Amino acid sequence: MKFIDKLINSFNDSNSHLCIGLDSRYDKLPQIVKKSSTIEQSIFTFNKQVIDTTHDIVVAYKINVAFYAGFGKDGLEALRLTNEYIRNNYSSIPLLADCKRSEMGESVLMVKQEIFDWLNFDCIMVTPWFGIDTVKEYLKWDEKGVCVYVHDSNPSAIEFQDLELKDGRQVYEVVAQNVSRNWNINKNIFVEAGLTYPKQLKRIREIVGQNMPILTSGIGPQGGDIKNLSGLFGKDGRRLMLNSSRQIIFAGIDKKDYLTYIRKAAEELRMNLLKLSRVDLI
Amino acid sequence: MKFIDKLINSFNDSNSHLCIGLDSRYDKLPQIVKKSSTIEQSIFTFNKQVIDTTHDIVVAYKINVAFYAGFGKDGLEALRLTNEYIRNNYSSIPLLADCKRSEMGESVLMVKQEIFDWLNFDCIMVTPWFGIDTVKEYLKWDEKGVCVYVHDSNPSAIEFQDLELKDGRQVYEVVAQNVSRNWNINKNIFVEAGLTYPKQLKRIREIVGQNMPILTSGIGPQGGDIKNLSGLFGKDGRRLMLNSSRQIIFAGIDKKDYLTYIRKAAEELRMNLLKLSRVDLI
Repeated sequence: MKFIDKLINSFNDSNSHLCIGLDSRYDKLPQIVKKSSTIEQSIFTFNKQVIDTTHDIVVAYKINVAFYAGFGKDGLEALRLTNEYIRNNYSSIPLLADCKRSEMGESVLMVKQEIFDWLNFDCIMVTPWFGIDTVKEYLKWDEKGVCVYVHDSNPSAIEFQDLELKDGRQVYEVVAQNVSRNWNINKNIFVEAGLTYPKQLKRIREIVGQNMPILTSGIGPQGGDIKNLSGLFGKDGRRLMLNSSRQIIFAGIDKKDYLTYIRKAAEELRMNLLKLSRVDLI
Repeated sequence: MKFIDKLINSFNDSNSHLCIGLDSRYDKLPQIVKKSSTIEQSIFTFNKQVIDTTHDIVVAYKINVAFYAGFGKDGLEALRLTNEYIRNNYSSIPLLADCKRSEMGESVLMVKQEIFDWLNFDCIMVTPWFGIDTVKEYLKWDEKGVCVYVHDSNPSAIEFQDLELKDGRQVYEVVAQNVSRNWNINKNIFVEAGLTYPKQLKRIREIVGQNMPILTSGIGPQGGDIKNLSGLFGKDGRRLMLNSSRQIIFAGIDKKDYLTYIRKAAEELRMNLLKLSRVDLI
């Protein structure tokens, strides 16, 4: 199946715009999970719990690979097991590798082996810094997706992304234009744009059009307000997903029934997003 | 020891500007190394041979992590063993992680654990796309270095890096300025600039000054000409290194005495660079 079809189907099947970031940093996991268990097993057990608790209301799971590689081979094995578990049990949910692996030439094939073949992701996230060379190889495999970080949610994202060009455009606008017009020849590319910069997010939707999915993030401590997503959900109100990581997976981390808190946080965000997206459909 | 001192010392001790890229892609290793050996052991054995053959004439080793992660946990273990071997036997040689790990916030700490604690590198290479947030945390640990990809050697590097700004500068110039003036508060940052764009490389040397090391690459198949390095070696002629990967480590890959070819290729490039750098010293 083409990646883009898998993603669009998942929007429809889940009736959700929620992407959960499984940034399950080992040292922050509940004590009960870590007790008498290895690093690998603790992370995997926690992820299984989160996945079983949320699988029916997410459009995708995003995993920042750093949170696993930071715990060496045990962390990476936990990641591999997690993706395998999702594949075996909830195979329709797309798995996004938040990994910033921006290579070019021969090493792109190596990243493909790492991210798609070994770790079993459906989609790789890359920075656009090196230009189209980074994504060229991926464009051949449209069963896999590529998400390009066009405008990020962090404070210093504007340092280079918002520089103003001679022709009046800003750097991120050129990236959005090139990605949507020149890079997306095989319809397996989409873009990331931070909620903390609503003006830029809106402009990115204008540039990439109604059909291209957008992944956004930056709610909670980062200060993004989901009200700013109104009008940006795209075609059928099903072309935008919001990632939330810590605010969901660590919602009740000190409580015995932390899974109840996780479910509640996920449901609440899903409902709020649905309400906003329905506005589009009127 | 501070990273920058380790690097400068290594320029002096090795009397070399050669950085060898240990991009030891498993499937390209000599048959004799792979015969009756595991992936992990084959890669590690080959690397030990290359390192023993070249350690006295290199300023640094650079490793593109993708070439190891592409072979999963076996590849990464071979990488870890390789760095451990260099640390134990040639501890004065800096180890550069060509890994494009550009994170921000909490995940930077995870990358630190991955690249510095687990894999034992001295220096991480990052894209500047997300701004100073990517390097903020690293600036506290000046025993470790950060190399920023300012202008790359690949064909599409110019797609965004060379965009012309309202004020007449190009994007890469702003990156070089910010990195050298605002980011380098703890003197552990340096820059990467591709040899295939000699005009930009020259401009980057002007911007970052004579004292900041530059890592360049792009000779051989990529078309870079080392003559263009003349005048760019920086302070004492010891602030520029040229990386070469495949042209060295796979120099005589089909030959029985491939190590002789590796040594010859490394020596030749080292001598050519020394000749050029001496011009600076006159």
